[in-house]
This record gives sequence, structure tokens and C-alpha cells, in this order.
Amino acid sequence: MAGGGQLARMTQQAAIALGVSLRVLAGTPDDSAAKVVSGVRVGDDRSLDDLLAFGRGCDVVTFDHEHVPGAHIRKLESTGVPCRPGPAALAHAQDKLVMRERLSGMGVPCPAYAPVPRTEPLKTLEDFAADHGLPLVVKAVRGGYDGKGVWVLGALDEAAGNLVRDLLSKDVDLMVEEHVAFTRELAALVARSPYGQGAAYPIVETVQEGGICTEVISPAPGLPKDVAAEAQRLALTIAGELGVVGLLAVELFETDRGLIVNELAMRPHNSGHWTIEGARTSQFEQHLRAVLDLPLGSTEPTAAYTVMANVLGGDDPDVYPRYIHVMAHDPAVKVHMYAKESRPGRKIGHVTALGDDLDDVLERARHAAAYLRWGTKMKEREGRR
Amino acid sequence: MAGGGQLARMTQQAAIALGVSLRVLAGTPDDSAAKVVSGVRVGDDRSLDDLLAFGRGCDVVTFDHEHVPGAHIRKLESTGVPCRPGPAALAHAQDKLVMRERLSGMGVPCPAYAPVPRTEPLKTLEDFAADHGLPLVVKAVRGGYDGKGVWVLGALDEAAGNLVRDLLSKDVDLMVEEHVAFTRELAALVARSPYGQGAAYPIVETVQEGGICTEVISPAPGLPKDVAAEAQRLALTIAGELGVVGLLAVELFETDRGLIVNELAMRPHNSGHWTIEGARTSQFEQHLRAVLDLPLGSTEPTAAYTVMANVLGGDDPDVYPRYIHVMAHDPAVKVHMYAKESRPGRKIGHVTALGDDLDDVLERARHAAAYLRWGTKMKEREGRR
Repeated sequence: MAGGGQLARMTQQAAIALGVSLRVLAGTPDDSAAKVVSGVRVGDDRSLDDLLAFGRGCDVVTFDHEHVPGAHIRKLESTGVPCRPGPAALAHAQDKLVMRERLSGMGVPCPAYAPVPRTEPLKTLEDFAADHGLPLVVKAVRGGYDGKGVWVLGALDEAAGNLVRDLLSKDVDLMVEEHVAFTRELAALVARSPYGQGAAYPIVETVQEGGICTEVISPAPGLPKDVAAEAQRLALTIAGELGVVGLLAVELFETDRGLIVNELAMRPHNSGHWTIEGARTSQFEQHLRAVLDLPLGSTEPTAAYTVMANVLGGDDPDVYPRYIHVMAHDPAVKVHMYAKESRPGRKIGHVTALGDDLDDVLERARHAAAYLRWGTKMKEREGRR
Repeated sequence: MAGGGQLARMTQQAAIALGVSLRVLAGTPDDSAAKVVSGVRVGDDRSLDDLLAFGRGCDVVTFDHEHVPGAHIRKLESTGVPCRPGPAALAHAQDKLVMRERLSGMGVPCPAYAPVPRTEPLKTLEDFAADHGLPLVVKAVRGGYDGKGVWVLGALDEAAGNLVRDLLSKDVDLMVEEHVAFTRELAALVARSPYGQGAAYPIVETVQEGGICTEVISPAPGLPKDVAAEAQRLALTIAGELGVVGLLAVELFETDRGLIVNELAMRPHNSGHWTIEGARTSQFEQHLRAVLDLPLGSTEPTAAYTVMANVLGGDDPDVYPRYIHVMAHDPAVKVHMYAKESRPGRKIGHVTALGDDLDDVLERARHAAAYLRWGTKMKEREGRR
């Protein structure tokens, strides 16, 4: 697995059960995953030489992020190492314009969009606003994550003009999209094997704060069965049409005019962390089964409701005393820490609670995550009591 | 963790979630656990020098087997490294005579037993047989596991005499126990923290073949509630009295005259592998929580029934094609492979199935384990159809 973050770290848990030897290409020996696998190669996964050296001796290479250049992946494949997902599929998770063009061509509902040209970019934005209204969403075509690379422009004023010109001058390719008025955000997680077997998890509701996923509820409460089935069908269709091998996460907007696709990811995804306890097969095991061409596992849920809440770094970086409190307070909440240094707003772990009563499960997960974060959030919470 | 077997391997899965850096002292870099942790030290865990070198830089040392000499553990503790369980408690899992004397002194029901002296050992066996009948069970006082170090003697004939004299001549200390007429075997798994917190898992039924555990059913079917509570009470009492820190597995005989203690283990135990999927907190996480002085986790079961079946090596060492079959045949069965070379009769993995219908769960676990083993067992099974 190229990349040494928490996704690779949690993939190791699944690799251990499957009897698979996971190696990771990590930026430093202190990366989250590098701390927990024996086969670590320290290197830059955006360097062709490092990637090729890592690939030697691997049966299959997969990825814990979208940032390995497609040309490098093609080169690695030409040396006889299968890469899953392959570069052709992965391009749709790496380049939002490629993704929009392909999905729109397939008839998949997407927001209205347009590329932002380097010449007269503001003219394009003004024309787009005339058709689709304000605010507008400007996105970096490549390289964004966790809200980075996305700008919501409420007005096409001088500040907006400066931002766009500044980004273009730094060679950041841009596109513009309509700001979708959504009821809530959903995510569809599916897996596809090289053989073409597909498996779909229940559709979840995702809650974002400042572009970072903070909470996932499985299944999405009150989602009509036909809409859930439509979301699964959409994700399986996209996985099949794009030739995805491994996981595909489709972030969706639920709107008055139906489901609209927001983003794609082709790897274990934050919206699927709940599956470690909440589904018979975790997304990490499922990704390995898919990329290793093994039969896929059951996606059956293990409880009526599962809630995952991300632990973000708070004001006080010393998480340990709070970690003890959370375990003592709720012996059934599952704590996952990524062994990453705590910095305000950084994802340093997640917690999972499950059970029959959604309100109870939500309260337990939120308490644990907020307490682990401490700082502002917890003080607000305490203040309300 | 001293020892690099499958127990350390599965402990790594729990360490990853807790954000704990697990190191192992493994005999070779190819040991089951050595393949999946970054902090491997290769060495002999029965060598004092290797143990002391390993202990430097560890916050706590624990064990994946009983074979580290107590004197070495005391020496390691004297250098300031806490060992959990400590040597005083661990002695009861290392020395069956020490265990029997202590438990009998506490009033815990045990089989009748006696040490076998080096002078006139057969006289002792004959006297013991006169009191308790035949067969007799002769055990090595130290070092046995998986049926090794246990001999059932149906008669005190010349062969029995030769066996006993041969063992004593090799400096194997022996004891004799009555052969308990049991209905079935049970196991009680509890955890105890340094703080004194205790947690008990549901009582399970264990099935042994040739001294090796092959199947575990949780909870033990049809076990009266008061007997289950008594078994949990016994195990918690023993853990408290002996000052165990970490897990304590108590192997029990269910008999017409009540529960009788067979063996003790103070580490994750084969009878607890079902907890990975079948309990809210796996035994591996629980052991880490206990030895790290964290609050213990919930032992609540996640399903009505969970069955774990061990995968033993069969006639054909190439498990891979069968591994694919098992996953395709039952997408909900969980396969755990230990990345150990397959040899006939060797534990190379386990499978877990769970659900509401015990017969169905048993059939699924047995099919998967038998199919993975292949060879004689599977041929017999096919022949019966």
C-alpha cells in the first residue's frame, strides 16, 4: 500500500486476519501505518524511483490516498506489478474534471460544472453564476482532501477575483460547480473485485464540519428504501463502468431533485470506518479481498445502528487522561487511535458505538469523540449543562 | 510481548486500534507475530540476556506463553520494567503442582493429585490408583501445552513403568491426577487490571481432539445460569487471590459432582478467539487494557451464538485454493490465518461464525475449518454424503 496514513494502519488489522503480508511505502518511519507493519519502506510515494523500488517484490500495489501520479502507476504496471485500482479508474478519483465529464456522460446526476480557464477566468465564473446563481463552488481539479482545495464564493467580488487569480498563478487548475442545496450528505461504499464481483454496504449519512467528516451514521436514518437502493445501484454502476478494483466511496448529496454525486474515492474511506465493528466485513478487509482477487465478504450490518465519530485534535495535545476517561465512562465504545501527533483540527482517531437506539448510540459516540478532543467543543458542551 | 506466536499476532490487531506500540520478542523473523509488527526483536525468550535487552524501552512486558522462567521475570522486574502478569501469579500457570496446591488450599474444586517422586514412582502411582481407580493421568509439572506433557495411563503395566522411568530420567518432574469423568469441558475467561477491576466473558464449551482445542461454542449450550455464574465467580476469585494482571483462562470439567478446575493460562487463550467478532471487546484488547492499567472493556456478546473452529494443518499444505473456496462459500464466516507453515495437526488458523441458530452456526464453522484443513477429515465428511 502506497501511503502510510491511518487507512494503511487500519488495513494492517485486516491483513493480519487474512494472513496477508502488508507492506507500506511511508514518508517517514513515524507515519501512522509505519509504526505497525514490519514491511515498511520509507520513501516518497510521488517519486517514481521510490514507487518502483517499493513495487519490486509486491504481488499487488494499492493506495491509501489519491496522490500517486497516474503516469507513475502506469510505469509500475509496465514492470509487471498489478496496481489496483488501476490508473485508468483512479484518474476519476484524482481529477475532478475527468470524473465530472465521465459521470455526466454516463447520465449520473452531478452538479452543474465548468472548467475555469486561465484566460478570463472571472468571465467564466460570472457566466456560470448567471446560469446557476450564487454561491459558487470553486475547486482545485486535483489534490484536494478534507475540505482543502474547495472554496465557496458567496460573491464575485475583488477578494474572489484575487483568490482565483492567485491560485491560477500557482498552476492550480480550477473548476467551478453550482452550490447544491442539499438536505444532507450521504455516502455509498461498494467494493468490486477484478473478477467483477460487487458488494454494497448500507448507505450512511455523513456529517461534515469545515469540510472534515466528523460523524457517520449507519444506516442513514429515515432514508427511504428505494433511495438507498438507488444510491447502491449508482455506486455499483460507477464502479463497474470505471473498472474500479477495490473500494469505491461515492459521496452524495440528498436533494429535492434526488441524489447528486459529489466526490469519489477509491480506497478505504472515512465514511466506512464504522464497518470495523458495524459490518460483518470491515471496509479494510473488503478492500484487501478485492485487490487480492478474493471473494468479497458479507456487508451485513452487525447492529441496528452504528455511529462513528472522528476524534480531532483539540487545544490540549495530551489525550491520554481523556482516553482513560472515555474507556471508563463507556466500556462498550470502541476507541481507535492513529498514533498521530495531536494538532488542533487534525484527525487523530475515531470512536464507534452501536446498538438498537439511535439517540443513545449518537450520544455515546459524540460524548466519547468530544471528550477525547477536549478544548473548545467540550467547554461549550459543559457550559450548556 | 515475549513470544512471537499467533497470540502476539492477534494482539497486534488490538494494539493498532488502541494506538499502542506493540513490540515482540520472537525466536525468528518468520514467527507468526514477527511478520506483522514493526518492533520485532529476534531472540530467545528463555534467555535472560535476550529478555533483559528486550525489556529495555518497554513500558510493560507481557507474555504470549508460559515458558519464560520466573527467575528471569523477577530479574527483569528488578530493572524497573513491570511484568504483567507478575512472576508470583504466573507461577500458577507454569507449574501445575504449585497451581494444584494453591487452588486446593483456597477450596477450589480440583482433581485428586499427587507429586510423583523420583524414588519408587510406581509405588506412588499404585497407591494413587488404589484410591482413585484407573485410568490415571500423568502430567509433566512444567512445560506442557496442547496435550503435550499429558499421558493417560489405562493400566500400570510395563509400558507405563517404562514411560514414567524414562521421563524422570530426563529430569521431567511428574505429577499424577485422577481421570475425571466429565460431561464436557468448559472455559471461563476473565481479565483483571492492576487496579483490581475484573471482567468476565460468557462461559464457553470447548471441544478437544488429541489434547488440542478444535472448537469453542459461546455461550456453552444449555449451561444452567447458576453454573455459568459459579464458573465466572471461580475464575474471578482465582484471578483476585493469585493477583493475576491480564487475562486468566480457567479450563473446567463439567461433572456430576460440579465444576472441577483443569488448567490455568494467564494470557490470551484459544478458548477466547471467538471474542474477536463475538464480544464487544476482544480478549486481545482486554489483555492489553488490563496490562496497561486501562479500564476494562465490555464483554457483552455480539450475537446469540458464536462458534470458533481451529484450522489444523492437513495432508495438503497448499491451503490457498481452499481459502478461496471458504470465502466464496460463506461470505460471512471470518477467516483468521496465522501465516504459519502448514504441517499436519498444527494450528495454522481459525474461523469464526456467529448468528441466532446454533446448528447453523456450528455447521458453518465446521465446514470452513474442515475444508481449510482438507485431507482425511474432509474425505471422511465427503464419504458420508
